[in-house]
Amino acid sequence: MKFRRSERLIDMTNYLLERPRELIPLTFFADRYSSAKSSISEDLGIIKEIFENRGVGTLQTVPGAAGGVRYLVKIGDEQAKAYIQKLCELIARPDRLLPGGYLYLADILGDPSIVQTAGKIIASSYASAKIDVVMTIATKGIPLAYAVAAHLNVPVVIVRRDNKVTEGPQVSINYVSGSAKRIQTMVLSKRSLAEGSKVLIVDDFMKAGGTVTGMVSLLEEFNATVAGIAVLVESEEIEERLVDEYISLVKLADVDVKEKQIKVLEGNYFSKK
Amino acid sequence: MKFRRSERLIDMTNYLLERPRELIPLTFFADRYSSAKSSISEDLGIIKEIFENRGVGTLQTVPGAAGGVRYLVKIGDEQAKAYIQKLCELIARPDRLLPGGYLYLADILGDPSIVQTAGKIIASSYASAKIDVVMTIATKGIPLAYAVAAHLNVPVVIVRRDNKVTEGPQVSINYVSGSAKRIQTMVLSKRSLAEGSKVLIVDDFMKAGGTVTGMVSLLEEFNATVAGIAVLVESEEIEERLVDEYISLVKLADVDVKEKQIKVLEGNYFSKK
Repeated sequence: MKFRRSERLIDMTNYLLERPRELIPLTFFADRYSSAKSSISEDLGIIKEIFENRGVGTLQTVPGAAGGVRYLVKIGDEQAKAYIQKLCELIARPDRLLPGGYLYLADILGDPSIVQTAGKIIASSYASAKIDVVMTIATKGIPLAYAVAAHLNVPVVIVRRDNKVTEGPQVSINYVSGSAKRIQTMVLSKRSLAEGSKVLIVDDFMKAGGTVTGMVSLLEEFNATVAGIAVLVESEEIEERLVDEYISLVKLADVDVKEKQIKVLEGNYFSKK
Repeated sequence: MKFRRSERLIDMTNYLLERPRELIPLTFFADRYSSAKSSISEDLGIIKEIFENRGVGTLQTVPGAAGGVRYLVKIGDEQAKAYIQKLCELIARPDRLLPGGYLYLADILGDPSIVQTAGKIIASSYASAKIDVVMTIATKGIPLAYAVAAHLNVPVVIVRRDNKVTEGPQVSINYVSGSAKRIQTMVLSKRSLAEGSKVLIVDDFMKAGGTVTGMVSLLEEFNATVAGIAVLVESEEIEERLVDEYISLVKLADVDVKEKQIKVLEGNYFSKK
């Protein structure tokens, strides 16, 4: 059965979007649609143009016998800016304030479309980087970690604060939480992370950075390396931050419990790009 | 700027896939591409055909002034069967066995492509149902819950086993875990679930069903109703199960710790369809 160009384009778009960073040989598409490789190349050219114009991503062509095409997520700057702006407004709503200056964020972190876009923005920064796995800590960072990982096509490992019988042998470390200065424990199943892995650490919120620093120490126990650190929200601290190299989408500049005001700014995402 | 059909098809495919169940007026697409509504209708016809042939989903057209088109996820039976078969083989690997007969599943639950497909299969069952929100319990069910929710375009609420200061006022209940017969607590933030919500409960694993029954009781406290229950893996129990109406993708038939054998069967997904 032969496919028309219009049919090929729809199916290829879906196929590529479902497999970010995966190298797909042109012969695969040629066989799938009983079409000449030259037609497939033309199709890919059209898809690439639309993806780039619409801020979806790009297609990378690798020449040669072992070559092919891969889709890399790459959100447009305008879209990212508009999204981050919207996120700032959402977070600044005074009814989020809880006693003690805590912020209620469960509705934001519970909205798959918000989390998906945040994941897409973060993944755009690392689309060409060597990343083997995304790491996060239970519980709130999990959805964002999966959104990032889906766009990078890598697995997620979840660090826990408690010991779980269903995880097998584990490695645990103690760390000092930066803001509360309390000693805490974090645990990772031994078989969940291969030695030498390049790890992107993702979390929802970073204060002084104690939890992230803990995850970095944990990685050392696995002989794994940090390929990047990304958080949705960072809170501005007067004291020294424990982590230097990270990207954030949003920065909590000031929380005034008495006046019920929350000041939210764009994070360092654009300046770190 | 006028768009060619090929360009429209690529962009529409991406646009629709990103917004499951959202009703999009044809005039939106007509404006976006400076094209006649009749051309848009033809485009949608082509997309619908390919989506249905490839087991991606379908397009539903709503006529009239307030009408439009919406994409519903609907995986093909063949693809679902092949996926569930692969999942059974993955789970049956003897090196998953941990002391006490527990199974290590973190690698499966940590693979976004596996979780995405599982979410797609479950969402296919509920694509036309009235669902306002997906509910799960921390921690392991979270990724699957988000995958389902993303395909249904609804938010996720996460029940916790502990009290969290960053969640505001909460409702808690006690429940008896079905297999261990222990009394446990589960907690949900008051503002995370609106009264009268229709809730799809999603979890990774169901034994006797005590946790799911607990979530059902919790819903009553919110005057919310159960719209469905879906789990990735159910374990076969000799005793009576506490939950009747649910779908499962995979069924753990027998775990023999001594012989290091795990027997895994297809769940009730196809018989419940």
